Amino acid sequence: MNDLSQPVVSRTATDVRRVGYPIEALFTQRWSPRSFDRAPMPVDDLMTIFEAARWAPSAYNVQPWRFVYAMRDDAYWQAFIGLLDPFNASWAANASALVFILSDRFSGDETKESLRPFPSHSFDAGAAWAQLALQATAMGYQAHAMGGIHHDRVREALGVPERFKVEIGVAVGTQACVEKLPAELQQREVPSERKALSEIVSAGRLVLPND
Amino acid sequence: MNDLSQPVVSRTATDVRRVGYPIEALFTQRWSPRSFDRAPMPVDDLMTIFEAARWAPSAYNVQPWRFVYAMRDDAYWQAFIGLLDPFNASWAANASALVFILSDRFSGDETKESLRPFPSHSFDAGAAWAQLALQATAMGYQAHAMGGIHHDRVREALGVPERFKVEIGVAVGTQACVEKLPAELQQREVPSERKALSEIVSAGRLVLPND
Repeated sequence: MNDLSQPVVSRTATDVRRVGYPIEALFTQRWSPRSFDRAPMPVDDLMTIFEAARWAPSAYNVQPWRFVYAMRDDAYWQAFIGLLDPFNASWAANASALVFILSDRFSGDETKESLRPFPSHSFDAGAAWAQLALQATAMGYQAHAMGGIHHDRVREALGVPERFKVEIGVAVGTQACVEKLPAELQQREVPSERKALSEIVSAGRLVLPND
Repeated sequence: MNDLSQPVVSRTATDVRRVGYPIEALFTQRWSPRSFDRAPMPVDDLMTIFEAARWAPSAYNVQPWRFVYAMRDDAYWQAFIGLLDPFNASWAANASALVFILSDRFSGDETKESLRPFPSHSFDAGAAWAQLALQATAMGYQAHAMGGIHHDRVREALGVPERFKVEIGVAVGTQACVEKLPAELQQREVPSERKALSEIVSAGRLVLPND
């Protein structure tokens, strides 16, 4: 049995997560650590991760997702780190790649009359994000999403028109042992739990906590 | 080689989809057919599919996703079919389960002062949707998302408070041969393609089509 109060060097998400039904191992192996090993990542590995995202489903197959990346120590790296909030920058600086995920609020062509609002742009981009993260896990990496980013500065630095929404930042890298983290982050380096299935699933009608 | 103009009884998505990088097969096996075989699905299989969704990542681990389902021929089935637009109802009536995915626009407890808007509710619910769909594919089912639903009537029929957004409907079932579809749908029963990776991925700055 794991003692969750004690960091374990070799802890993986499947050591601590218990499933109620026999799902593919990938779903519990995927998690969001903060300890990364600063290793360079072959750019083809990042492209493979994007390739998985590319095949996500979307309404009318519009594919509203866009990915803008920097690889460790490339010409964009330091600027990308500076687009994260200071807490995320402190650990994501050890990742191998940084990605910003954008979504297109419209479908169609601006120069034609086909331009229309695309209401599911965030939902569909979220599906692509999940596929990106799962492919990363399958390859021995982990992808950690960050809501804590400077949205306006991302827009400016990446040249993102208003048509697109800046969704999240993602740190991708190879997980390092927990001891590589500052002491105050080591106790937090534990795969997260989830609500019970009964809290999120119901037959026929939505069941609320106070029902 | 496949002739895409001719329906093929045994066509699977991986027969027609070409990947540029070696991703997990699940991502191209997953697609959105309309031909389902009307077979009953064990409710534990649907729970397994929800279990995969349950482990999706979300900002601050809020888990804004909710799933409300009907199984073929249960007490909710006919009402659920009636919540789809007529086109979707025409083919989804052959599925084994129907699911509506909702997202919680707020985090925290309404009865306390912790209630706050949760901006990434749709994005995170989209991640859960992708995991649902991939697990379904892994089990030999397919899950087909439907934006064409009567949102207001879903809200009323499922008892969904304004706090939640009605995102999409999903038909889950076992794929049947294309000949089971009406003639006008047979030619459309082809796994969709995707934009080139170069259209959705760029280094450092967003690249737009007219750049």
